[in-house]
Amino acid sequence: MTVYDVIDAKKRGARLSGEQIRFFVRAVADGSASDAQIAAFCMAVLLKGMTDAECFVLTDAMAASGERCARPRAGGVYADKHSTGGVSDSTTLILVPVLACLGVKCAKYSGRGLGHTGGTLDKLESFPGLRVDLTPEQFEKQVERVGAAIAGQTQNTVPADKRMYAVRDVTATVDSVPLIASSVMSKKLASFADIILLDVKYGDGAFMQTPEEAVRLAKLMVSIGNAAGRKTLAAVTCMDQPLGDNIGCNAEVREAVEVLKGKKNDLAALSLYHCRKILAAARGMAEDEAAALAEKAISSGAALEKLAEIVYAQGGDARAIHDFSLLPLAPHVHTVRAAGSGYVDVSALALGKACCALGGGRTKENGDVDHTVAILLKKRAGERAEKGEPLAEIYYQKQDRDAFALAEGAFSLQENYRARPLVYAFIGEE
Amino acid sequence: MTVYDVIDAKKRGARLSGEQIRFFVRAVADGSASDAQIAAFCMAVLLKGMTDAECFVLTDAMAASGERCARPRAGGVYADKHSTGGVSDSTTLILVPVLACLGVKCAKYSGRGLGHTGGTLDKLESFPGLRVDLTPEQFEKQVERVGAAIAGQTQNTVPADKRMYAVRDVTATVDSVPLIASSVMSKKLASFADIILLDVKYGDGAFMQTPEEAVRLAKLMVSIGNAAGRKTLAAVTCMDQPLGDNIGCNAEVREAVEVLKGKKNDLAALSLYHCRKILAAARGMAEDEAAALAEKAISSGAALEKLAEIVYAQGGDARAIHDFSLLPLAPHVHTVRAAGSGYVDVSALALGKACCALGGGRTKENGDVDHTVAILLKKRAGERAEKGEPLAEIYYQKQDRDAFALAEGAFSLQENYRARPLVYAFIGEE
Repeated sequence: MTVYDVIDAKKRGARLSGEQIRFFVRAVADGSASDAQIAAFCMAVLLKGMTDAECFVLTDAMAASGERCARPRAGGVYADKHSTGGVSDSTTLILVPVLACLGVKCAKYSGRGLGHTGGTLDKLESFPGLRVDLTPEQFEKQVERVGAAIAGQTQNTVPADKRMYAVRDVTATVDSVPLIASSVMSKKLASFADIILLDVKYGDGAFMQTPEEAVRLAKLMVSIGNAAGRKTLAAVTCMDQPLGDNIGCNAEVREAVEVLKGKKNDLAALSLYHCRKILAAARGMAEDEAAALAEKAISSGAALEKLAEIVYAQGGDARAIHDFSLLPLAPHVHTVRAAGSGYVDVSALALGKACCALGGGRTKENGDVDHTVAILLKKRAGERAEKGEPLAEIYYQKQDRDAFALAEGAFSLQENYRARPLVYAFIGEE
Repeated sequence: MTVYDVIDAKKRGARLSGEQIRFFVRAVADGSASDAQIAAFCMAVLLKGMTDAECFVLTDAMAASGERCARPRAGGVYADKHSTGGVSDSTTLILVPVLACLGVKCAKYSGRGLGHTGGTLDKLESFPGLRVDLTPEQFEKQVERVGAAIAGQTQNTVPADKRMYAVRDVTATVDSVPLIASSVMSKKLASFADIILLDVKYGDGAFMQTPEEAVRLAKLMVSIGNAAGRKTLAAVTCMDQPLGDNIGCNAEVREAVEVLKGKKNDLAALSLYHCRKILAAARGMAEDEAAALAEKAISSGAALEKLAEIVYAQGGDARAIHDFSLLPLAPHVHTVRAAGSGYVDVSALALGKACCALGGGRTKENGDVDHTVAILLKKRAGERAEKGEPLAEIYYQKQDRDAFALAEGAFSLQENYRARPLVYAFIGEE
């Protein structure tokens, strides 16, 4: 068998055998498959598809391609939440402390932002001094002491996915359901979470444009996770407009803290929704009861205290939670105003891109991020605006007319506006 | 515009604009497109197709990607013949001297063999001392003096094709009609031939399995060539069985010489067919008249004398034409015998592979070729064989049971045998 044969078979639309898939993934991990061969394979999969069974083997082989993350010795239930990527989505920063102070361990490996989507590691680093490059020993000790830790995954985890993702990113082969599912789930299977909640975004700012596509991806990932013995759940949620009101690292951390202090909006609602689903699954309790516990963790201040503990444990300055001057916004402000009157519609994608263009996001892997760049929404989709009213404030370091135009173009004013549902579907156990 | 955008558009099945195609080809030639991006593009083209108009622009852009071969200053009509690759096909060695001694100039750039298919440059080098790395000055002088030269193309010709072909070769993206057409024709358009005859093979030993596919490829290439102002013709010919009776460099050169001395078989017939078509187009004469002239060039010995001139001009030992001990075959012989009785069927692909496995072909680019390895057919497809009769003789240096088995498996004995036509179709001017 050769890598060529496997590509050729998929190109002809064949169903690949387990042996063929495992052979290919080993060749990716050990370097014997070239980038060109990986690209051809991914394009053939994108255009010819894969059965769920093929995708499961692909995921399993990828998960086995490197070192697995050791499960911390501390007992208890470990939960993980993963989003397929969105704009103004800081649910992780809210959900982790809530769950941790309710006894559900969150020992979480997260990623960085790219393009219009943000990443949890970048946001965490908004806390002055905070480190995400924990050693396995530090990670484990912190989980034992605090009940939660958020770190970057090491180089040796799921090397097959690292190579494949790097190739897909430049070859227009990201938007394939089986390739997304195997990429996401291989990292989950290489880790140790007992409960995995997947937040599969649909809409303007997501890979999946329609809720139907997102449901297809969600169902595939849930079936892969459950087949591998993990309790896997998925919420299909809307990413037409930004989830919260703030975009940009420091601004999003501010908003997460505000939610933990009681702010109510879509970000708060979705964070609590995820907490409820995970808590009910972890504790085997009714969802109402789980929801009440999660709300109490916030109203009592326990979750905010837990966030401070996590930040402090990772070397960060937890005073930022009470002193937003430690989470500064850029000095210059440009206000986007309503060009007419009507119901606001706003594109998550365009605002994410505008923030990125101003330096608040990453245009290429390993690029720098300016944590102070921010876009603050003054009107949300569906709200009414009159001509001249502020729609958003852009905080910037260096003027960029193209980025401003992008942000302005993100807004339109409609005679009617009907939002698509924030949570379109939930996929749990059959 | 980015390379990513072009791949993405083709992946979605879009018709690419001329601007997109030219941008992509420039990125291939200047190195800004990665091998992975080239692979993804080629797989998307293979699976989503291209219109003839897209393919024409692709070919033209590729032809323009490097230096063009300068037309020799000597006047007259220049002809070129190109085969899509076959087994035991030494028509070039026959056709070039025949045409040259009838006043049609053949200043030809040829290629090397790969896998089961042979290459003209390798065969020419069977003449002791012969050089194919002529400088442009040597090439031009020889054409002026002898009327013919056969050399390798320089590194700077059609660099976009060189990169694309190297990628396609390892990514299972060779068998795409528009990619084959653009690869072949870009090299022709970067050169100067006035008349181009394409020999498009179909069948067991060819890229195109069916004559219908081969006709499609032939028509596309003819339309590209004519659109670029070259008189382009194509013969769709059968490659189910080897064209001649000999496979392997020295053995094929022996056979080409035999044909120039009067031997009649399919190789002779097809070589004369090509000569007739090219001569008629070059001289504007009736085909019957052209055929008679070509036959006379052989029967008079003029063509053989011209071959000797070409070999001598390129530094080769032309005595080999009269002394086959200068074109030696390997010392050991294995005879393949009929396992039963019936009408012989023989696979060009299997014999080509067997010759390659014994060292007589090239398994990777820049690999060595053993010129003495040979397979001589004792029975051709359609002939009757009785049990135990010799079907082929294998001349080898080092025993290789797998290669012998491959050669034995190439033969089968049928109750009936019906050959597909040697020339299935001819595509000329509309």
